[in-house]
Amino acid sequence: MQSLDELVKLLSRLPGIGGKSASRIAYHLISGDEAYNRHLGQAIETIKDKVHRCSLCGSYTDTDPCIYCSDMNRDRSQLCVVEQPQDVLTIAASGVYNGLFHVLGGAINPMDGIGPDQLSFRSLKERVRDGGIKEVIIATNPTEEGDTTALYIRQILKDDDITISRIAAGLPIGGDLEYADRLTLARSLRGRIRY
Amino acid sequence: MQSLDELVKLLSRLPGIGGKSASRIAYHLISGDEAYNRHLGQAIETIKDKVHRCSLCGSYTDTDPCIYCSDMNRDRSQLCVVEQPQDVLTIAASGVYNGLFHVLGGAINPMDGIGPDQLSFRSLKERVRDGGIKEVIIATNPTEEGDTTALYIRQILKDDDITISRIAAGLPIGGDLEYADRLTLARSLRGRIRY
Repeated sequence: MQSLDELVKLLSRLPGIGGKSASRIAYHLISGDEAYNRHLGQAIETIKDKVHRCSLCGSYTDTDPCIYCSDMNRDRSQLCVVEQPQDVLTIAASGVYNGLFHVLGGAINPMDGIGPDQLSFRSLKERVRDGGIKEVIIATNPTEEGDTTALYIRQILKDDDITISRIAAGLPIGGDLEYADRLTLARSLRGRIRY
Repeated sequence: MQSLDELVKLLSRLPGIGGKSASRIAYHLISGDEAYNRHLGQAIETIKDKVHRCSLCGSYTDTDPCIYCSDMNRDRSQLCVVEQPQDVLTIAASGVYNGLFHVLGGAINPMDGIGPDQLSFRSLKERVRDGGIKEVIIATNPTEEGDTTALYIRQILKDDDITISRIAAGLPIGGDLEYADRLTLARSLRGRIRY
């Protein structure tokens, strides 16, 4: 069936959706509510028109500047540097950070041809130089690329009179030593905190 | 962010898609290909207009009659009775059945208010009476409702000069006795095949 096959093929290109899930979703849409299908379809079609990147921090936003950059109740002396726009929401949702954000647009990855020029290090440097920021918290992923990127940031900001920190990596809360991988365990030991 | 939140809310109403998957898909759509978003959005919006129920067997189809009912290379003496339209594709894809189909539209379930009148037993009876069918294979689910429905079909077709069979239930291939639930094991024993 052409129209069903096409829908299943399109759905299975979404992240985390395999062939079986795509079929299940397609059948749900066929037998489901027409108004819902219309809403979902239009939301998907128009999302790229509605969501932009904040001109200050680079996060996804409906307005410019974004709600974080324009919120005067946030601590404007802290700047959290992340790889992706979605990381901003993840950290904001944690409820333990009330500062500003800076989105790099990725991590340094020579294998994929992503060097410092493709990422927003220049505007990071400018934001720090413009003053007011006392601490830069590097929240790139605890991966080889994220760690390399963190080292690079430490390097380009070393002459600025600010504190630079890196989010901790180690065993997840509720995790079990027995099931921890070697790299996580090593990082957890190296990053031990003295009582 | 209103437009993102709305998209995530709509996506998380899909079967098997939780809040985290919905966010991941939404970010993928924001940063992805605009043409793909348009195709997917339109496919979702129009799927209910394009896909209908076959007037003969009740399966989902673009054309009427469906590809199974109109395929003269299929064995027209066998009729496989299933609960849902999607079951037709599942059985057809197995490659071991080459007969016709009949979709009931569900299973008898008094608790949910689904009695024989809501399901297509009348047209099943008519199709059998019109002749040509030698075997009815009941492929309703191996659940209480599916089994009840199978017994009901056996009852309404008992005076017709045809073979009636029920697909086998038991341990899945590659399964392990140790992990089988009691009901499956009981069914597997009762349905044992003599060598």
